[in-house]
Amino acid sequence: MAATDQASPAEPNSAEPAPAQSGTSRRRLLTGGALTAAGLTVGGALGASTASGLLTRNRGAEPAQQESPAPFGEERTAFYGTHQAGITEAPAAHAAFIAFTLKKDTDRDALARMMRIVTDDASRLTDGRAPLTDVEPELAADPSALTITIGFGPGFVERAGGAAPAWLKPLPAFEIDQLQDEFSGGDLLILVASDDPVALSHAQRAMLKSVRPFADLAWVQRGFRSARGAHDDGRTQRNLFGQVDGTVNPHPDEDAFDDLIWVKDGSWMNGGTSLVLRRIAMNMETWDEVDRPSREFSIGRRLDTGAPLTGTKEHDAPDYHAKTATGMPVIDDFSHMRRATSRSARERILRRPYNYDDAPLPGAESGSNTGLLFASYQADVLEQFLPIQQRLAEGDLLNTWTTPIGSAVFAIPPGCAADGFIGETLLS
Amino acid sequence: MAATDQASPAEPNSAEPAPAQSGTSRRRLLTGGALTAAGLTVGGALGASTASGLLTRNRGAEPAQQESPAPFGEERTAFYGTHQAGITEAPAAHAAFIAFTLKKDTDRDALARMMRIVTDDASRLTDGRAPLTDVEPELAADPSALTITIGFGPGFVERAGGAAPAWLKPLPAFEIDQLQDEFSGGDLLILVASDDPVALSHAQRAMLKSVRPFADLAWVQRGFRSARGAHDDGRTQRNLFGQVDGTVNPHPDEDAFDDLIWVKDGSWMNGGTSLVLRRIAMNMETWDEVDRPSREFSIGRRLDTGAPLTGTKEHDAPDYHAKTATGMPVIDDFSHMRRATSRSARERILRRPYNYDDAPLPGAESGSNTGLLFASYQADVLEQFLPIQQRLAEGDLLNTWTTPIGSAVFAIPPGCAADGFIGETLLS
Ligand code: HEM
Ligand code: HEM
Repeated sequence: MAATDQASPAEPNSAEPAPAQSGTSRRRLLTGGALTAAGLTVGGALGASTASGLLTRNRGAEPAQQESPAPFGEERTAFYGTHQAGITEAPAAHAAFIAFTLKKDTDRDALARMMRIVTDDASRLTDGRAPLTDVEPELAADPSALTITIGFGPGFVERAGGAAPAWLKPLPAFEIDQLQDEFSGGDLLILVASDDPVALSHAQRAMLKSVRPFADLAWVQRGFRSARGAHDDGRTQRNLFGQVDGTVNPHPDEDAFDDLIWVKDGSWMNGGTSLVLRRIAMNMETWDEVDRPSREFSIGRRLDTGAPLTGTKEHDAPDYHAKTATGMPVIDDFSHMRRATSRSARERILRRPYNYDDAPLPGAESGSNTGLLFASYQADVLEQFLPIQQRLAEGDLLNTWTTPIGSAVFAIPPGCAADGFIGETLLS
Repeated sequence: MAATDQASPAEPNSAEPAPAQSGTSRRRLLTGGALTAAGLTVGGALGASTASGLLTRNRGAEPAQQESPAPFGEERTAFYGTHQAGITEAPAAHAAFIAFTLKKDTDRDALARMMRIVTDDASRLTDGRAPLTDVEPELAADPSALTITIGFGPGFVERAGGAAPAWLKPLPAFEIDQLQDEFSGGDLLILVASDDPVALSHAQRAMLKSVRPFADLAWVQRGFRSARGAHDDGRTQRNLFGQVDGTVNPHPDEDAFDDLIWVKDGSWMNGGTSLVLRRIAMNMETWDEVDRPSREFSIGRRLDTGAPLTGTKEHDAPDYHAKTATGMPVIDDFSHMRRATSRSARERILRRPYNYDDAPLPGAESGSNTGLLFASYQADVLEQFLPIQQRLAEGDLLNTWTTPIGSAVFAIPPGCAADGFIGETLLS
């Protein structure tokens, strides 16, 4: 396809909007191309030919359609539905967590006006269409599976005159915390995620503009995961400590999944969830000094495969009773995994962390400004998240190298239908 | 492929290292898989089926090999060669420009020691192998076309006791400049680029460690382009102003290309090039207030297709003599394109810009901290880059919305063979 070919058959704006598929992990839809039987054939062919040697690859210089897989730029994630998008789908490669402080004069009516605008803009952007005030429709055309997820902080619900869930408040202070205001709290959260950082930047900008009359920017935290297409989709990613991170997580196909994630209490939060965001600095300097056995000991899992120290494959069940020849537990009682693992059927959370690796602060001794945007979703923060965090704060070998420096809790209200708006159950 | 399958036939460390292909734009090699005739077939099949409707796509939750293109994580770019890598290949999606200040006691011998270490580490990392001191080989295994390119600032060449090219000095001050030290200058540059931000972070960290005994970190500037795979490879990207950016650029297939990029003077720089890096803030607030015709007027090109205002397709030659009905030039004399365009066969540069969109500065009025890491390569800064920059500084409609806030010039020495090191022509 020539560089100037703007009228391809897959022209984004001519594609049918993807129908909403609420409450499933299959929300992500591919509208721009189709990898059907042909894809299957190629998968096989590639599998067989991987050992066959080198092949030059050329991109950018010339049209090279025969070498390129179908571009994912046009892929859309449905916005409308029972639940908001961006929570249970496979996480996109790039995310921006954006928090706002409401202006003094933003009253309940203004909140509703703001949320109608935010909803309209988010539904358009995720569908590859420019918001009404957007002068750059071209940057909106390729959302690359963009999702925009809205959260309310305690201040928002108070301003709306609503009843806040018991868990909608800052987490208790933990001894390990060194929280900074510039990464904590907030009245309104807009989480923008996309597989393309350019699409993300544009959507972030557009959302900033919609909110600006009503609220001031409090902070932006950007994170990334492995690039889409770098690895097999089924593979669990590694964080910047090199650990396989994300092995034990509730799975959308589990019977218990819905109850773990979605609020079911008949309130305005029905069908919503909670987000805990912890910005956790990872000390690359001191971690670098640790040998591999000690690193594995601190988590309770192997670095190469991610398998528990008592197993051989990533998803093997850990054996917390196994002892070494000298009678010590193979998986230490204070290993991160042992401390974090669920003590009850209810005590489970959906973790969706992003890495951050920002420019080192001027004058800082360390050459790194690196860590995790730890994000977890759960129906109830107090029942599901808090006991885990408390155990980790009291004793977790990993704390040697990690420090929470930001913390925020948001109520993620339910999704809405195409004629509604996010927050309508609270605001109308 | 199951999530735990670590012993796939394409195991990175068992792949043959890619042989160097110096001085070509085809340097990027695919070692982990082969998109040969099968890829061709699929390209065709996809082309025919793009209009065929919706298809659910599922990634992350389950093995979905039949839907996934071959992962590019294992792709390697050859490090050794006549020229350094990372200059003339298709730019990777993510880049970190990292600058260092030499420690006082880093003398000529120490520089040579440092460059041997840097070369060894860079050659390993780009080949998917961990440097000798790296405790995280897993994060090195998937370089995703990683390149590591080394540059010397004036201070480096002075310390080495070498003869600096006439152009190796800070650019003259321009009236448009508001340069900040934290984005300017530097004795040593390490440019790390990869299609995967996780591979990039790891390589950045490894290079910081190799250099640390010899030099202090001065600054890190991260940038991004569209995600690999989001668009057709042949398509010119857009910057965060929404402009098609990169249309007019020397092409590796041109006869003149080598002379434009590579120093050919028999000195230690023979086979090297120069890098000018300008950090240019783009004012999203004021840009947002401008209507599309004015935006197009400021560049001289259309926003939708990137075509010159006198043409219909992106690569149409502009007609600078064309007049409107009222006798005004269609492409304004002070449009960015008109001012920037080459006045002689020699006055051409290879532009490889990256976008940046960092967290807004605390307390800053604007919600955006957005711009371009303008990077250009040319054999001679004074002959090729400077006249263009001077014209733009003197008059360019685009200056209304852009402000250079960082500036640096580096000598990019030639490449080396597997038994040599980058900088050997200066240091041995
Ligand atoms: C920088 C901070 C952190 C890092 C690097 C980290 C890393 C890891 C790793 C490598 C695993 C094992 C593999 C897996 O199941 O994903 C794990 C498991 C887990 N982590 Fe973390 N973690 C961090 C913070 C937290 C926090 C703040 C919480 C919750 C308060 C948490 C909760 C969990 C849970 C629930 C598991 C699964 C335990 C199990 O049942 O096996 N982690 N983490
Ligand atoms: C934020 C800053 C800048 C932006 C947004 C920008 C944007 C653009 C755009 C949209 C084009 C037209 C399409 C193309 O050929 O790529 C262009 C062309 C060009 N720009 Fe820039 N540019 C910037 C800074 C610079 C600087 C600092 C230089 C060099 C000193 C430069 C040199 C050029 C050249 C040589 C061309 C091609 C002109 C021609 O022959 O048609 N640009 N730029």
